[in-house]
Amino acid sequence: MKAVIPYKKCSAKSRLSPVLTREEREEFVELMLNQVIDTLKEAGVGTIDILSPSIYGLENMTKANVLLDKNDLNEALNGYLEQAEEPVIIVMADLPLLSSKHIIEIVSTKKDVCIVPGKGGGTNALYIKNPSNYRVRYYGSSFLTHCSIAADSGQNFEIYDSFFAGTDIDEPEDLVELLIHGKGPAKDYINRKFKLEVSRGRVRLITL
Amino acid sequence: MKAVIPYKKCSAKSRLSPVLTREEREEFVELMLNQVIDTLKEAGVGTIDILSPSIYGLENMTKANVLLDKNDLNEALNGYLEQAEEPVIIVMADLPLLSSKHIIEIVSTKKDVCIVPGKGGGTNALYIKNPSNYRVRYYGSSFLTHCSIAADSGQNFEIYDSFFAGTDIDEPEDLVELLIHGKGPAKDYINRKFKLEVSRGRVRLITL
Repeated sequence: MKAVIPYKKCSAKSRLSPVLTREEREEFVELMLNQVIDTLKEAGVGTIDILSPSIYGLENMTKANVLLDKNDLNEALNGYLEQAEEPVIIVMADLPLLSSKHIIEIVSTKKDVCIVPGKGGGTNALYIKNPSNYRVRYYGSSFLTHCSIAADSGQNFEIYDSFFAGTDIDEPEDLVELLIHGKGPAKDYINRKFKLEVSRGRVRLITL
Repeated sequence: MKAVIPYKKCSAKSRLSPVLTREEREEFVELMLNQVIDTLKEAGVGTIDILSPSIYGLENMTKANVLLDKNDLNEALNGYLEQAEEPVIIVMADLPLLSSKHIIEIVSTKKDVCIVPGKGGGTNALYIKNPSNYRVRYYGSSFLTHCSIAADSGQNFEIYDSFFAGTDIDEPEDLVELLIHGKGPAKDYINRKFKLEVSRGRVRLITL
């Protein structure tokens, strides 16, 4: 079993641009990536590949292998899956609430595929026992798409139900979840820049 | 063990007013309430109380007991807990993705208290084994508050990690989760009024 993390540092996380500068977003995604790598290592995953269109920000990466592929996310991942000779877990790089317990549970599935839904129809992690028989299609409602791809190719699947693994950090409101439930460098980074505003509705973010 | 569902139909869910009229919101919360009651029954919960400031919308309720209390949410719930002589699960009425499996797991906790986080710092469900020793404080970051209340009173607690139980329906974007992951009357209601717009980011809602 091996893990692959799609990653792009350059101008990352544009939907956070209302609250973080480009430089800040690039610093922040690097912290999140490192937390995800540490989580995978803690879960005992031996091979961790970072799949990136560019070496930018990965020049000094020693904790994981760096694979460069200039194709778009889906093409690059499908190329990777095609060549994989063992089960693969695809983990997004923006999951600072993901824990090693989640990883261990996801890869313990008895099904062929385990899909971890993210907010707004996304797929935060995807574990595929027979990667050469599976193709991914991220963007849009990828959760539903990934369920269909499994079903259509005769592979049974489990939906992994987790609030924390389901929290990908894409929009300012997601930083609220990181501040409330997170720990580690990514949370500390956001904690230095924002505080929570507590009102009658959901908790909101305020710039310090 | 018994369950209590705080509920108010009159002008409910004001944060959905950008996409649903008052009448629609009132219809919708009633459907969600009924789904939560059915889920609790399916999980084998014998006593289900609805705690409401008004009889409005509950005139013909036969599936659960109706308790009227004009006090605010926290006062009403704390009065209820004080008099409870058995474990209590407080379940919000806006959780159409909650399943009986969730309920069974939550009330099987080995800890004194089990807290189910909702989006934006909320508490979607709260199971309390010794209700006369616990007081709730909803609104604001109630999740963190409920953790502290447990810890400060020497009660240990579990955090129940579920994407689906963690999805409370308060804002238009939450309806996206209902359309993607839901089933039953509440989903059908929203399905008749909206469709999903699939773009590169998260899936968005479009009025039909």
